[in-house]
Amino acid sequence: MIKTDILIIGAGPTGLFAVFEAGLLKLKCHLIDALPQPGGQCSEIYPKKPIYDIPGFPEILADDLTKNLMEQCKQFEPGFTLGERADTLEKQEDGTFIVTTNKGTKHHAPIVAIAGGLGSFEPRKPLIHNLESFEDNGVEYIIKEPEFYRGKKVVIAGGGDSALDWSIYLSDIASEVTLIHRRNEFRGALDSVDKVQELKDTGKINLITPAEVVGLVGHHELKAVVVSQAEHIDKEYEVECDHFIPLFGLSPKLGPLGNWGLEIEKNAIKVNNALDYQTNIPGVFAIGDVNTYPGKLKLILCGFHEATLMCQAAYQIINPGKRYVLKYTTVSGVDGFDGTRKEAPKAVIKKIE
Amino acid sequence: MIKTDILIIGAGPTGLFAVFEAGLLKLKCHLIDALPQPGGQCSEIYPKKPIYDIPGFPEILADDLTKNLMEQCKQFEPGFTLGERADTLEKQEDGTFIVTTNKGTKHHAPIVAIAGGLGSFEPRKPLIHNLESFEDNGVEYIIKEPEFYRGKKVVIAGGGDSALDWSIYLSDIASEVTLIHRRNEFRGALDSVDKVQELKDTGKINLITPAEVVGLVGHHELKAVVVSQAEHIDKEYEVECDHFIPLFGLSPKLGPLGNWGLEIEKNAIKVNNALDYQTNIPGVFAIGDVNTYPGKLKLILCGFHEATLMCQAAYQIINPGKRYVLKYTTVSGVDGFDGTRKEAPKAVIKKIE
Repeated sequence: MIKTDILIIGAGPTGLFAVFEAGLLKLKCHLIDALPQPGGQCSEIYPKKPIYDIPGFPEILADDLTKNLMEQCKQFEPGFTLGERADTLEKQEDGTFIVTTNKGTKHHAPIVAIAGGLGSFEPRKPLIHNLESFEDNGVEYIIKEPEFYRGKKVVIAGGGDSALDWSIYLSDIASEVTLIHRRNEFRGALDSVDKVQELKDTGKINLITPAEVVGLVGHHELKAVVVSQAEHIDKEYEVECDHFIPLFGLSPKLGPLGNWGLEIEKNAIKVNNALDYQTNIPGVFAIGDVNTYPGKLKLILCGFHEATLMCQAAYQIINPGKRYVLKYTTVSGVDGFDGTRKEAPKAVIKKIE
Repeated sequence: MIKTDILIIGAGPTGLFAVFEAGLLKLKCHLIDALPQPGGQCSEIYPKKPIYDIPGFPEILADDLTKNLMEQCKQFEPGFTLGERADTLEKQEDGTFIVTTNKGTKHHAPIVAIAGGLGSFEPRKPLIHNLESFEDNGVEYIIKEPEFYRGKKVVIAGGGDSALDWSIYLSDIASEVTLIHRRNEFRGALDSVDKVQELKDTGKINLITPAEVVGLVGHHELKAVVVSQAEHIDKEYEVECDHFIPLFGLSPKLGPLGNWGLEIEKNAIKVNNALDYQTNIPGVFAIGDVNTYPGKLKLILCGFHEATLMCQAAYQIINPGKRYVLKYTTVSGVDGFDGTRKEAPKAVIKKIE
């Protein structure tokens, strides 16, 4: 059982900044995220895209924002349960909560802060009748660890940035990469499209277009995919492979959170924005894009503010009756849980003679 | 008469970011600030100190935050009335407002956003009976334009960073710099103290300690200050000068805002935080450190959020009935009023053969 002060569901920008603000109040955080790495949408959906409305950054790449937030909070040593989806919330008799993931990992905390963005990202799946029987047995929708594919035969399906970029990346790792797309045209960064063309020309990527994977072959383990060439509807053939990775995008789903007894409106969690972004379940907060209230804007900068106010309320619940006096980091510095200290250069008092 | 969409009182971080958010909604802003430059406290009080709790910046100097925010909003071409204090607010029959400064500059706008921080910074003044008769006539409390002192004889009083840093800076510009402090010890950055020692040793700064300026001599124009050497209480003498600059710090005062009919609580302006940070006067908002509501935290990052929600409400007031759909800068880019456009690199659709 993982124990912490504030259990944060969602490791996007809002969740990561909550770790920092909680740390200033000497509260520890642990984060659960269905994606294999922190950063939420910023890292998974548009890592290389610039964001223009983060205050103080005329322009910042989404991936760099994640890196900066990780750097900012690392001194408060957050714990992570990644690649697992928070499935159930159980309130204990003492008012604390146990949250269990789809893989059975249990987390125990007095405060739960849902920073789940638009929900957990679920892969869009192709319509193949026996697809599910090969899941985690040759079929993957998200690449968690590229090294896993070393020396393997891989078939990637899709026509966007993910399919292009992973084909390029794995062409150096896998023994064979086949990219299958239902059109001849790909949609992505010009660099990526050109690179795939080059790798195709040099024989490092097999390209099959316009075509679709319509079946999977194997017994327990995947042996091959069945490909249907769009131009010749009768021409179906097998392509041998160890892994089939359909990269058709991720679509956010509120998912199991919807069954936690939270008040839901427009697919988001209603919170008390006049005070502390608490939900209808005392001790459970919702911050960032996942919440809703009158005038709500789904902007990262709003999540930062909500995370900060949530931490203050969490502090009061965890330390009842204790009065907290806001300290400014410029004046008081920052004491990390890892023993580090950051502080402004001190003024000296010195005689001039 | 200066006309704008949103008249912002206070050009600190919150006010500057409001310009950016308003710009995304195609609203123009004009800012009034009593200080001679934008940045508020960050630039005037602690420009060289690091801030650790701006989201996405593990550390940033206050001055750099101001520079970044100026850079971020410049494409929306804000207007500035600097070095003037907003003194009166008059509501017009059509619901718009006229705000007049202490120097008589008039501004007209349908929306007023008070982003006044802790108030306008008023200099702490020494107790000298005829001080006020020389104000703006040889006595200045804030250095607006260093070049103004070129070739002049200057007496600076004070023992902190401002007195040290301006003595150093003006020692290259003024014909004579005399620094007077009531103690032998100065309190400031070690570098600055050491530099003043060096300039004193080389004769570029005259140092008189422990001493105080107790009188001013001149007829309309300042001719000299009267110095009392603390150790010899009877020993008073004159030091010839063109300018006397007492730098004893600035203390924030809510000031004239207090008489605008706004609901005030704990020296701050009450706002409706459950919606849009509007005050009791419709069309007048208060954002950042100047406002108060249940759970309020006087943090820069909260001001950013409040500024953003304020702009949405301002848009609705200026464009009644018009429905606004939030656009993401990553998706839609940013169109500056100066004709510039920022946008994420576009995806291409391209055939791979």
